Parts: sequence; structure tokens; C-alpha cells
Amino acid sequence: MTTENTTKGPTAAATTAATVTGLLAEIARTGTDAIRGGYTRPVYSTAELDLRTWFTDQASRRGLSVETDRNGAIWAWWDVPGGDRANALVTGSHLDSVPGGGAFDGPLGVASALVAVDLLKARMPTPTRPLAVVVFPEEEGSRFGVACLGSRLLTGAIDPDKARKLRDPDGNTFADVAGANGLDPRFIGRDEELLGRIGAFVELHVEQGRGLIDLNQPTAIASSILGHGRWALSVHGQGNHAGTTLMSDRHDPMVAASRMVVAVRDAARNQPHARATVGRLQPVPGGTNVIASRVDFWLDVRHPDDAVTAAVVETIHQQAQLIAAEEGCTVELREESLSPTVHFDPALGKQLQKILPDAPILDTGAGHDAGVLAPYVPTAMVFVRNPSGISHSPEEHVVDEDAETGAVVLADALHGLMA
Amino acid sequence: MTTENTTKGPTAAATTAATVTGLLAEIARTGTDAIRGGYTRPVYSTAELDLRTWFTDQASRRGLSVETDRNGAIWAWWDVPGGDRANALVTGSHLDSVPGGGAFDGPLGVASALVAVDLLKARMPTPTRPLAVVVFPEEEGSRFGVACLGSRLLTGAIDPDKARKLRDPDGNTFADVAGANGLDPRFIGRDEELLGRIGAFVELHVEQGRGLIDLNQPTAIASSILGHGRWALSVHGQGNHAGTTLMSDRHDPMVAASRMVVAVRDAARNQPHARATVGRLQPVPGGTNVIASRVDFWLDVRHPDDAVTAAVVETIHQQAQLIAAEEGCTVELREESLSPTVHFDPALGKQLQKILPDAPILDTGAGHDAGVLAPYVPTAMVFVRNPSGISHSPEEHVVDEDAETGAVVLADALHGLMA
Repeated sequence: MTTENTTKGPTAAATTAATVTGLLAEIARTGTDAIRGGYTRPVYSTAELDLRTWFTDQASRRGLSVETDRNGAIWAWWDVPGGDRANALVTGSHLDSVPGGGAFDGPLGVASALVAVDLLKARMPTPTRPLAVVVFPEEEGSRFGVACLGSRLLTGAIDPDKARKLRDPDGNTFADVAGANGLDPRFIGRDEELLGRIGAFVELHVEQGRGLIDLNQPTAIASSILGHGRWALSVHGQGNHAGTTLMSDRHDPMVAASRMVVAVRDAARNQPHARATVGRLQPVPGGTNVIASRVDFWLDVRHPDDAVTAAVVETIHQQAQLIAAEEGCTVELREESLSPTVHFDPALGKQLQKILPDAPILDTGAGHDAGVLAPYVPTAMVFVRNPSGISHSPEEHVVDEDAETGAVVLADALHGLMA
Repeated sequence: MTTENTTKGPTAAATTAATVTGLLAEIARTGTDAIRGGYTRPVYSTAELDLRTWFTDQASRRGLSVETDRNGAIWAWWDVPGGDRANALVTGSHLDSVPGGGAFDGPLGVASALVAVDLLKARMPTPTRPLAVVVFPEEEGSRFGVACLGSRLLTGAIDPDKARKLRDPDGNTFADVAGANGLDPRFIGRDEELLGRIGAFVELHVEQGRGLIDLNQPTAIASSILGHGRWALSVHGQGNHAGTTLMSDRHDPMVAASRMVVAVRDAARNQPHARATVGRLQPVPGGTNVIASRVDFWLDVRHPDDAVTAAVVETIHQQAQLIAAEEGCTVELREESLSPTVHFDPALGKQLQKILPDAPILDTGAGHDAGVLAPYVPTAMVFVRNPSGISHSPEEHVVDEDAETGAVVLADALHGLMA
């Protein structure tokens, strides 16, 4: 006996509604990191390329037109009849990760966007505004050192010449890597036409703090992103043999850099609401029996007030110079990126609050492509609760129910903005 | 007109005597490190394999019989008539390097051994004692973490099971890497027969301190090697997002590890003649915008008195535990290797002093395969002046004249020991 309604064969599967957790399960084995735990999916790695293929396939199955722009972002269009792409609604996020990151930072926004398209398609045969799902490359900056590189290139927030010369830890330039992955590095940079099409950008993202835990809510609307920046410091000393060099003869940059890391923490502690972090540090050459000749480390500083961020960095720089001098070393500090505090579009925010009257309003200390786009186009964000409060770590989490709620909220938001 | 005595054609070249500087020039482009400067030649890397091929070729050109033992050391034999290899004279060193090391640490001893063979061949048609030039693998421990791994395996100073499980920074085991390079990992370990053949081992090495600069001498005979060891420390904290985690909520292992690095320096400073170094440190996951979840670092401690070395490590361990507790982290310390202070064979030392009456006597803080062999066979070392006093760095140096003097001194020593 054939029971067509319950058989889960290929025919039935095609009509089964996709879920956010179901989509994330499809990529749960892509880019897993056996050493760090979690996921390591740097831009243009095998893992991230596999995720791009997966996204393209998912978008195509939904009848969306998929295009990769000249900066490497993927755009999947649900066109209005006639195909005009002006004043488009755009949603999406990123698929790249920090080293050993969680499953949700980025992919949650992409999977939720795909499900939101499904939900909208069930409500209307064609959209009343063109809608695109976008995947931005190198949001984390974990390969080339500049966070949100894709959206920075799109908006012209980074000079394309500077971008071309960025190097990954193996010394490859962004120009070479992008070139090997189908881009023409001569043509990266601000895309006036594409940017002009974006009527509004709404990014859904896992919350990276404890705000929604404290509020006991599954989702929130974002108000602002804390200003933040990255600085690279190089401490130069005298490389030598660990066994033959007396303690009194040393100019050890590892000792100097270590004292600077403590000074970074102290500087942020002394400034309410400031956050300062050293999460990446590399002694050169890095041998156990070798006094390092140089130590490179990277500083991340954030504060709601951009003047305070600058003051904290200045304090750290002064302290670092004092420490270097005491240790017979020298230090250089170089700004890699700096994003002022971003307030999302008030009008769009008010529209979203009308559509989602129950959602609380939250700010965040995490940077996002939405923050880079905000000065150029009306932008908003939706956060989904993270019960661990932990992010950039395998412990980042979203419960299944909240993930599906997030997709519905996103669909409602986009639906409301169609009107 | 043909002037056979001055033409430097192929025929003439074959009769030109090899020099130490000439031999080192042949490998000057092998394993250069564009980022760190100097040379990076880890065991079984392409660079080190190329150096093995070069050595085998050089030994074969001299009519030596080349064999690789079951631990991966290469032995080039100049046999006595009849081929008996008992009570052999052995000289040589290593070809692997620390990351960004100098041109002389290891290769100077190998090149000088080859030239010493040439000099001895000019003095006698066949040796009166069998002579071997040996190249030990992984002297620096820069790939698998245990210094002098080749000589430790030969003598049984390391358990072969422990050696098989050692991992390189990419997670490959020594068993797998050795297996891929022609060894049978089941058969690594103490080689009674080979060890029994060594009547005396004389290693020539670039000095890694300033002793010969101060004495104004080109070469010295070694008296002892300072006791030293390596310990691996892991500091565990709570990985999290650098932007969203308040300073007061952090358990940052990078801050804890940095304070420990300073404590390491202070512990050594408080103990006369002690040396303690952190030259390798790795935050995990290592992203700029990520509070690390773990920091691994390696500790190198040396002192002439083994009890003091142990006391310094104990002080560091206690300090590390206090710091970890203060930072809301935990720390583990694990011994990776420990070598007591080595006094070279007094009888062999006296013989060498008779042969080389002008050479001063020096001790050293650097570890060597000669130090590992010393408890098992009569062992001696010859040091060659390093005018920079710097080693494990591209700035390590030997002037041409001293390099050639070193080879003559080595030849004289071996010649004297033939009698």
C-alpha cells in the first residue's frame, strides 16, 4: 500500500519545509577543527569554498539567481516581475569563521535568510520589492587581518590597493588568493551600481554576549555596534641561544611583549566599558631553545565612545614604549582597521519595532558587515539568543527553537518592509 | 697555448681541495627562510632531505660507504683494510636547524668532518682505525619537541614508544613522518651493535656564546655541557568574543601566560648562572578578535647544577599556579626532556689536550648530540669561534679562516686518536 502523505521518499522530501537547524546540519562537518575544536573556515579555504558551493546550490534550488560580485560576495536574487533590482531588500551574513569558532556566527544568518525566503514564498508568489540573500567574504578578518573585508570593499571603506597587498599568515597576498579564486584583483573595490540597489540591509546574527539571556527573550533588534579597531604591534629584540646567553645579556622581546599584554588588560580595566584583548601573538622564530628576535601581536580595542578607544590605544602605546625601553627592545604600533561606533538607521529601526513589537533593543560589542554598510545604506540587525553567552568558541550555541523563531522573525521583518 | 697548471677546467677542479666554506656555500640556498631570515630546516622537511642528499653525494665522492641507521642517522664509513668497524672514531654533527637559525649550527661540524677526511686521506692511504662521519637527525628538536632525538634513540635515552607518539606542530606523529621517509617505526630505538662500534665521538660545533671571543682563540676543547631541560605549559581559560565580553567577566589565559613569562625571567634572574627562556608560545585559537581559550608555551631552563635547575622549575611551577588562580585559569606543566650536566670523557679530553696543546678548555650552555652520547661512549667536542656570540639566529657567524682552522684541528685530533 502506498501512503503518499507519510513516505519520506525523494518526492516527499522536495515538499518538506527546510529548517534553520536542518540547513546547519548539512554543513556541520565542513571545516571542523580537530585541534582547536569548533570550525576553522578562513575565506577561500577548502572549507569556505565548500560552503559557497553549498549556498549556491541551496539558492538555486529556491529559484534564486546567484551572482558573485567583483569583491567575492555571493548574491542570490529573488526578483520582482520585470527584474528591476532597485530599492532591494537585502539579508544575509557570512560563512567564514575565526579559528576554532562556533557553528552559528555567520552561518545562522545565512541559513535563516534561506528559510525566510521559503516562508515569504509561501506567503506571496513574487516579492513586491526585489530581495537578495548575500554572503560576505572575510567577515572575521581571520585570514587577511581586516574584518568585514567584503563589505569594506563594496562600500569603498578600504582602499583597494591596500586590500590587494594584505597578506595571510603564509605570506600570500589577497590579490593572489582572490585571483586564484575567480576574481580579477584589478577590479575589486567600491561597487556603485550594486550599492545603489540596496534599499535596506537586515542581518540576522547569533548574539555574542549575554544580553538576551538576561532579558529572557529569543530575539532582539540591534541599536548600535561599539566602535572597535585592530592594531598590530611588533617588538624587536635580539635573537640568541637560550642556553648560552646570560640573563643579564638579553634583550628578549618575549618578556617585553608579555609585559605589554598585561599592560593592555590593565589599560582596559581602568576605563569603564572598555574592552582590550590580545588573542593572537607570535614569537619569531618561535623555537623552544631560541630567545626570540621579534614578537608580533595584535590588539583589539572597543568602547562606545570613539575618543575613549583612541585614548586607551594611546595609553597602551605609551606603556609599550616604556616597557620596550626597559627591556632593551623597540616596539612599533600600526593601525590595521578602525571602525567608529555605528548607530543603525533610526527610521528602519522604528519600522522593525512596529513589525516586531515584542523584540527588545540591544547594542553589541561585536563588529558586523551591517556595521560597515550602515553609513551607506539603511541597515538593521536581528540578534538570536546564545545560551552560553560565549562566541568565537566551540561553546557558542543556539537552541533549535530559537533558531527557527529567528527565521520567522526575519521573514516577518522582510515581509513588513515589502509593504 | 694550454697552461694546464692554471686552467680551472673540470679536470683541474677534481683535484682542487674542498674547503669548509666551499662546502657550506653549496648549501647556502637550501632551506632559507624569507620571513624569519636565516635557515629553517626541520627534520624530514624538503630542505633537510635535500641536505641529506647533498651529504650522501659528498661522502660517496670521497669513497665513503654511506648507510642510514634504523633511527635515521646517516653514517659515512672510511673503513680499515678488512672492513672491521670495531673501536671506530666517529665525527660529525647535524643538518637540521631551529626556525630561522644560522648557517653554521650543525652544518659546520658536518662540512668540517668531510674536509678532515680529505686532510687525513692526504696523510694516510687507509685509516688505522675505522672512521665514520655521522649526521644525526632532529638535533634541535624543532619539529618533534625533543632535542637530540636521533642520538637519544641510538642510545636508548628515549623510550621508542614515546618517540613514536611525538607530534609535530601539524599533528603528524614521528612514527608517521619517519615511516614516510624510509624508516620502519617499529624498529627505532637503541642500537646495541652500532653503539658498540663507537670507540670515540668527536663533534666539532660553532660556539654559541662569547667564550672564544673573550679568549681571542679560534678553537677550544669542550669540558662540559650545562644541564638543561624543556617543559611544556598549558594555560586553560575561557575562550570568548573580544568585543562582547566585559573585562570583569574574563578568564583570559593570554594574560595569565604573559604574567608567567615574566615570572620565568624573574626566577632565573634570582638564581646565579641560571638561564630560563620562553621562545615559543601559542594562543589557541589565535584570532585577533577572540579571547584565547588556551595558551601553550614551552620553557627552557639550564644551570650547571642539576639540583638548581630542578629548583628553578619548581619555583616557576608554583608561581604559574598562583598566577593561574588569580586569573581564573588553570595551568599544567609537563616535562618534555631533561638532560643532566654532562662532563666529557676525561681520558679522551687529556688525549686531545696533548694533540692540541694551544686549545683552551670551555664549557657550554648549549645541548649537543655529543652530550647525549657522553654517558655511553667516550665523547669530546671542539668549538669554533663565533664572532657575533649569537646563535639560533641568522646573525650566527664564523669567519672563513676560523672555519678552515677548525677542520685542520679536527683532522689533527682524529689523526692523533688513530695512533
